[in-house]
Amino acid sequence: MRPSGRNLSEMRAVSIETGVTKHAEGSCMIRMGDTHVLCTATIEDRVPPFIKGSGLGWVTAEYGMLPRSTTSRMRREAATGKQGGRTVEIQRLIGRSLRAGVDRVALGERQITVDCDVIQADGGTRCASITGGWVALRLAVNKLMKAGDVISDPLIAPVAAVSCGIYAGQAVLDLDYPEDSEAGVDGNFILRGDGQLIEVQMSAEGATFSRQQMTDLMDLANQGTKDLFDMQLQATT
Amino acid sequence: MRPSGRNLSEMRAVSIETGVTKHAEGSCMIRMGDTHVLCTATIEDRVPPFIKGSGLGWVTAEYGMLPRSTTSRMRREAATGKQGGRTVEIQRLIGRSLRAGVDRVALGERQITVDCDVIQADGGTRCASITGGWVALRLAVNKLMKAGDVISDPLIAPVAAVSCGIYAGQAVLDLDYPEDSEAGVDGNFILRGDGQLIEVQMSAEGATFSRQQMTDLMDLANQGTKDLFDMQLQATT
Amino acid sequence: MRPSGRNLSEMRAVSIETGVTKHAEGSCMIRMGDTHVLCTATIEDRVPPFIKGSGLGWVTAEYGMLPRSTTSRMRREAATGKQGGRTVEIQRLIGRSLRAGVDRVALGERQITVDCDVIQADGGTRCASITGGWVALRLAVNKLMKAGDVISDPLIAPVAAVSCGIYAGQAVLDLDYPEDSEAGVDGNFILRGDGQLIEVQMSAEGATFSRQQMTDLMDLANQGTKDLFDMQLQATT
Amino acid sequence: MRPSGRNLSEMRAVSIETGVTKHAEGSCMIRMGDTHVLCTATIEDRVPPFIKGSGLGWVTAEYGMLPRSTTSRMRREAATGKQGGRTVEIQRLIGRSLRAGVDRVALGERQITVDCDVIQADGGTRCASITGGWVALRLAVNKLMKAGDVISDPLIAPVAAVSCGIYAGQAVLDLDYPEDSEAGVDGNFILRGDGQLIEVQMSAEGATFSRQQMTDLMDLANQGTKDLFDMQLQATT
Amino acid sequence: MRPSGRNLSEMRAVSIETGVTKHAEGSCMIRMGDTHVLCTATIEDRVPPFIKGSGLGWVTAEYGMLPRSTTSRMRREAATGKQGGRTVEIQRLIGRSLRAGVDRVALGERQITVDCDVIQADGGTRCASITGGWVALRLAVNKLMKAGDVISDPLIAPVAAVSCGIYAGQAVLDLDYPEDSEAGVDGNFILRGDGQLIEVQMSAEGATFSRQQMTDLMDLANQGTKDLFDMQLQATT
Amino acid sequence: MRPSGRNLSEMRAVSIETGVTKHAEGSCMIRMGDTHVLCTATIEDRVPPFIKGSGLGWVTAEYGMLPRSTTSRMRREAATGKQGGRTVEIQRLIGRSLRAGVDRVALGERQITVDCDVIQADGGTRCASITGGWVALRLAVNKLMKAGDVISDPLIAPVAAVSCGIYAGQAVLDLDYPEDSEAGVDGNFILRGDGQLIEVQMSAEGATFSRQQMTDLMDLANQGTKDLFDMQLQATT
Repeated sequence: MRPSGRNLSEMRAVSIETGVTKHAEGSCMIRMGDTHVLCTATIEDRVPPFIKGSGLGWVTAEYGMLPRSTTSRMRREAATGKQGGRTVEIQRLIGRSLRAGVDRVALGERQITVDCDVIQADGGTRCASITGGWVALRLAVNKLMKAGDVISDPLIAPVAAVSCGIYAGQAVLDLDYPEDSEAGVDGNFILRGDGQLIEVQMSAEGATFSRQQMTDLMDLANQGTKDLFDMQLQATT
Repeated sequence: MRPSGRNLSEMRAVSIETGVTKHAEGSCMIRMGDTHVLCTATIEDRVPPFIKGSGLGWVTAEYGMLPRSTTSRMRREAATGKQGGRTVEIQRLIGRSLRAGVDRVALGERQITVDCDVIQADGGTRCASITGGWVALRLAVNKLMKAGDVISDPLIAPVAAVSCGIYAGQAVLDLDYPEDSEAGVDGNFILRGDGQLIEVQMSAEGATFSRQQMTDLMDLANQGTKDLFDMQLQATT
Repeated sequence: MRPSGRNLSEMRAVSIETGVTKHAEGSCMIRMGDTHVLCTATIEDRVPPFIKGSGLGWVTAEYGMLPRSTTSRMRREAATGKQGGRTVEIQRLIGRSLRAGVDRVALGERQITVDCDVIQADGGTRCASITGGWVALRLAVNKLMKAGDVISDPLIAPVAAVSCGIYAGQAVLDLDYPEDSEAGVDGNFILRGDGQLIEVQMSAEGATFSRQQMTDLMDLANQGTKDLFDMQLQATT
Repeated sequence: MRPSGRNLSEMRAVSIETGVTKHAEGSCMIRMGDTHVLCTATIEDRVPPFIKGSGLGWVTAEYGMLPRSTTSRMRREAATGKQGGRTVEIQRLIGRSLRAGVDRVALGERQITVDCDVIQADGGTRCASITGGWVALRLAVNKLMKAGDVISDPLIAPVAAVSCGIYAGQAVLDLDYPEDSEAGVDGNFILRGDGQLIEVQMSAEGATFSRQQMTDLMDLANQGTKDLFDMQLQATT
Repeated sequence: MRPSGRNLSEMRAVSIETGVTKHAEGSCMIRMGDTHVLCTATIEDRVPPFIKGSGLGWVTAEYGMLPRSTTSRMRREAATGKQGGRTVEIQRLIGRSLRAGVDRVALGERQITVDCDVIQADGGTRCASITGGWVALRLAVNKLMKAGDVISDPLIAPVAAVSCGIYAGQAVLDLDYPEDSEAGVDGNFILRGDGQLIEVQMSAEGATFSRQQMTDLMDLANQGTKDLFDMQLQATT
Repeated sequence: MRPSGRNLSEMRAVSIETGVTKHAEGSCMIRMGDTHVLCTATIEDRVPPFIKGSGLGWVTAEYGMLPRSTTSRMRREAATGKQGGRTVEIQRLIGRSLRAGVDRVALGERQITVDCDVIQADGGTRCASITGGWVALRLAVNKLMKAGDVISDPLIAPVAAVSCGIYAGQAVLDLDYPEDSEAGVDGNFILRGDGQLIEVQMSAEGATFSRQQMTDLMDLANQGTKDLFDMQLQATT
């Protein structure tokens, strides 16, 4: 029995609201149950030094949590003077995942920065950031294409992510916070709309896992991301 | 003529939506035109070391801007490794202003932290933060009173803030970003619902100002905050 | 009754000693009672990136306190690894105030940095820094003019500052430390020799204030700065 | 064809030399081909604040690279003033992986810190760190048991890690640097001697991967870690 | 021929003015030619953790340069966010040197912090800091003795320092800045009034030196510090 | 009687193993008793800004200790966020000492960075770093000469260092950690193979010292470095 009463393979209610800020080239608020993440995409002409002059584009991401997005208040990272290890890990994952869906030649020598800011957290913020981040990216790229700055579509297929884990001994889809904090095994699965895998992370948190459990989690993730791809396309067309 | 077409003494449309995050003891989204600030209030039992054991309470504030709340993307302060001078100034102002409306004996030895995070910026973010911050504070204090943790109301009167400035030679109320970036003189006025002044800051930005202009700005601020007090009370009762 | 026995509208004894360090282009030691601030002005050919090539000049300021300028020793900011919020606020104020007295076209594309280092503190260090900082600036500009590097005088009029506050219920001029730490309301007034206002900051510290009190403080500030302008001119001619 | 001439499922030559520093409670130098990592384990009586008084032990890890462990010199992290994102990610992984092999009740309220310092790098440093780190941990725990400070063995089974990836379209075991920098997919597999999985990370680096490839990599990892478990036991008995 | 016209064994004019700030327990301004250092001593009841409860006292020092104490402006260390290597080296030297003249049992469990802030620099600031720092320390200790907080004098003998170097091939006493920047060998000699040596540092800066030159520099230092001991005693009695 | 049973003028067993890492242009592991330091030399074409275009070369050094090189674990400097004062002092000394043996014109406009990382510490790490650092430097320069990038040998003579001190009232050569922590006087002597002195540092640590003792220590250092020069030449030819 899941705390939320959901079935083992049932995701939380998902909504994706686009165009939520007037300044960003692309933006959305993604809500996966009580997890709400504001994603914005910013287009800039400059690229990082290591690809200057290469003609290739770059997609990168930053991640943050508002101090009171959590049940008890977290210290503001700007005030502590650095991004914590968890933040750094997550934003590297988001950037890497989104880039796996981008044809960097087609993008051309420009950078798109995707900011994912958690307004309210209830588990699965990194997965929501990737899924919502792709929507913001899609909208920004649409702008580039409409303006004729980019000719062939640099986005290969949608990129979405979902967490799965072993909770109370059973494989469940889309962990919320009460499940996440109790789960013995926790996995993040990032897939591309064409069926390819981008990143798979399964991690023991107290318990370890068997190869069969690994397969079960992967199956759930396949199913969950299919629904997310549909919603991403709906939101951006 | 103001860029927005407003009259000299006309504020932007203001809305205050409360209860916007499920974790915080008090919260609201305040919108002054296109400036949107998410304000949350967090109650904690600990107080800063300098008042430990005094029986007095403390109210403090932190301020941040999402990287793409602005027309071009700002660097994330958590990534640069420190809060900039402007941020530090603003959050000190918010905390000081809110405290001027608090009876710290009645609050008792606890701390309330008000976080003001700018989701979208179009000028006047510090004033919106103070006005919205008071609403979040009011809601959090209501919770304390309902629970019987606080007996007599520690909030003396509402606290609200508005900016006024000299734009194109004329005193105008509630500067938006296009006005703010052109204004020769820029003022922030923080008032309390009982008519008392909490903080007055008038600052030359290119131009200087006369004593008469100072009086004109003060008059506009008086008028503007009256409307804000009404909205604060509506939002919290 | 003021702790020092001064009348309500009586400033502390002020002296301005110029040419106190051999390296700086302009320098003075300003003493307002027991508050002693060493001000130096440094001319550099480079300007900040945001005005490079504009032909405009820049004036900026930095502020510091020696660790034992205060009654009990403060931690050295260089050792703590950053300038505190109060320091940042003050040095931004000094720079902004001095710039309001400068014709940046006439100054030409160069930067003058005014360093204000508090040797001994007894209240009012930011005001003393502005008043003394202008003297250092004046002397440095004189050097530029004598050398023919600058043709028409870029300094519009002297800039001076004084603090006023409500102490024991009464408006008093030029708070010293014992008054400052007790005052319910504290204001800093920065004026220009031609009568224009540059910056007005009035701030509740425990108490709030009425509009009449605001007027009283402003009147005192007008009177106090008149004397300071005279001393500045004496010291620099 | 692999650059080193190895078969697809052939690991590099591995050696584990124990007792390499006289101060640490446990230590080894692990060499996987040209990747050399010095691992030390330090026992301390204190534990992190969040488990103080719980009776539970803690195992944590830190990771570093000597500046010239790499083909071109890296900047020293102590000099740049912070550990980079990659370092933080790796040391969190090492600590998490080792803890998954530890019975924290049996360990008792003490902390063991495993330091993994890369003396020479040629790919796979994080996996070598985990495998060697377990050896250092085992030796330190042996010391505790010999001294009677710990009664029942807190180490459940050995923990070892190996990287696998898709290189030139084929699944290969134990990537060296030339392979790692070209591989389209890169995975780290952390297993426990009893056959359980601790952590699986597969990541697209340019290419993506299919579910079949995921299975192939997992199979290779199973085989590779079996050999490592044997060497770990040989080295510590 | 020395740039200043001094004889090879001639020090610059030295003056020591005591009681220069009203807050510090001991203070002086020491002037060695154009090098001016403000030294203050602060007494605190707390000691560093490593001697808590030992009954022993501690003397420590901090050193700083005002940004425009030098011919061209230096960046303020508080603004750069850390003390540079040179600063750290110097303040460790000052503290170590002063402690060598202190009976820490007689001082009792308290800390005296000596702050040395360079107001104007013309070479030899670390030596002037030690010599002036001892004067501030002496005055602070006098206060402790007068108050009966310390019974037997914890200061064994005065501590003074002088720089010597090889300039234009000749051993010279008390280098000023023009000499210091040209000298091939530069030494700092810290002696105690009873003839004992505290610290000797001789350092090649471009040139190296022979054992005979080492002896010559030591002889000069002996002579120079004799005069400084006299001035220290005059200033403090 | 020395704790190790050595004679007063007896150094510890010294060994220098070269070519210990495959990436560095020059490298060695120097062992002075239980003090083991890994030294690597890196050649880069860029030079520091202050000599760009001068045609002169630069030699610099960095120093670090592995966290468990010491009897109890030290905090990792990369994790604390800065190099401590002792580290900064030591690496400046190493760089300065090595430069005193280099003809920077002959080296040409390139930089050689010598990294000295302490693998195991038992006193005298800075001296071992200098002696071993020179070996790494020599090997790197040999590579430059063999490649014809440098024509005339830029290394004037070997540079070696040894510590001497007053232990239990007697002058002893090459202090190990038990001696170092008890010694009242501690000196570091850096000499060049042609008999010239590069740096002499003698420092009171609790005790002070007489001029005769200074002479005794210098004599011991002369003798000790003679042996080190021989070993350096053996190791590099």
